[in-house]
Amino acid sequence: MNLNTMDSLFEHDVHDLYSAEKQILEALPEMISAASSQDLRSAFQKHLAVTERQLERLQGVMHVLGIKPNGVVCKGMKGLLAEGKEIIEAEGDPSVKDAALIGAAQRVEHYEIAAYGTAQAFARELGFADVARSLDMTLQEEGDTDKELSGLAEGSFFRSGINDSARQ
Amino acid sequence: MNLNTMDSLFEHDVHDLYSAEKQILEALPEMISAASSQDLRSAFQKHLAVTERQLERLQGVMHVLGIKPNGVVCKGMKGLLAEGKEIIEAEGDPSVKDAALIGAAQRVEHYEIAAYGTAQAFARELGFADVARSLDMTLQEEGDTDKELSGLAEGSFFRSGINDSARQ
Repeated sequence: MNLNTMDSLFEHDVHDLYSAEKQILEALPEMISAASSQDLRSAFQKHLAVTERQLERLQGVMHVLGIKPNGVVCKGMKGLLAEGKEIIEAEGDPSVKDAALIGAAQRVEHYEIAAYGTAQAFARELGFADVARSLDMTLQEEGDTDKELSGLAEGSFFRSGINDSARQ
Repeated sequence: MNLNTMDSLFEHDVHDLYSAEKQILEALPEMISAASSQDLRSAFQKHLAVTERQLERLQGVMHVLGIKPNGVVCKGMKGLLAEGKEIIEAEGDPSVKDAALIGAAQRVEHYEIAAYGTAQAFARELGFADVARSLDMTLQEEGDTDKELSGLAEGSFFRSGINDSARQ
């Protein structure tokens, strides 16, 4: 890891995001299969399409920076998706599993919110105005997905009647 | 992983958060030593004290739920801190390293924002009103820490004169 200049740190972060998006693209079909509610499956399917677009956007960013994928593996995303895998493989009540999948997906979204937030700030400060706008577009989408997942979680709580078991 | 009821998922999430906070407590002294700017060191030191309080709060939550630490390891946090470790061990320009450390810390914060956000929603829906309030208190603190780190990042960009290298 080269920390000699802000440019090299920024490039590292772009490589890391590229790896993160690739890992998410691989994981999403399993998340879709594991989800029970149609609304959640649709949300994950939509997120798959959005992730493909975000990966293309990152390829555009790499083109501007004159860099190519270098095989860096985003360890943070690897850990987050390992958590997701545990849920995918677990048996249990379909509604509970859906709630767990939403929780895992929101952890992934928040990773991206933090990472794109940092990357777009670096891009802006380094004077890459177009790149910053492109990264910011993805950042906004990640925020929207997170809100959509929160809405689905609330919906699924009510559907599964958990509210009825209120204890106090 | 037991996904039979929302109670068991909620308990799992509390165990996971407990592991996450323990890992953060272990990592923070290294982050403090690796930071160069006094402001960043102070922010990490403050965060260490806040994390100790948050861990105590979680112990209170576990007491209410009648559960004890069970050795679950939060894989997501493990991955995030592995990223942080790479930065801690890397050589480079002190300001750049500080910027990288802030980025790593913000990824950690966002993990906690997602995880505490989910946990407090579960607690509320399951009728644990006091537990929900306790988790929500931590959630607000994580949001505040994230904002503070963003402010420090902007400050450090200006200090290191990166703005002067604007290209467009």
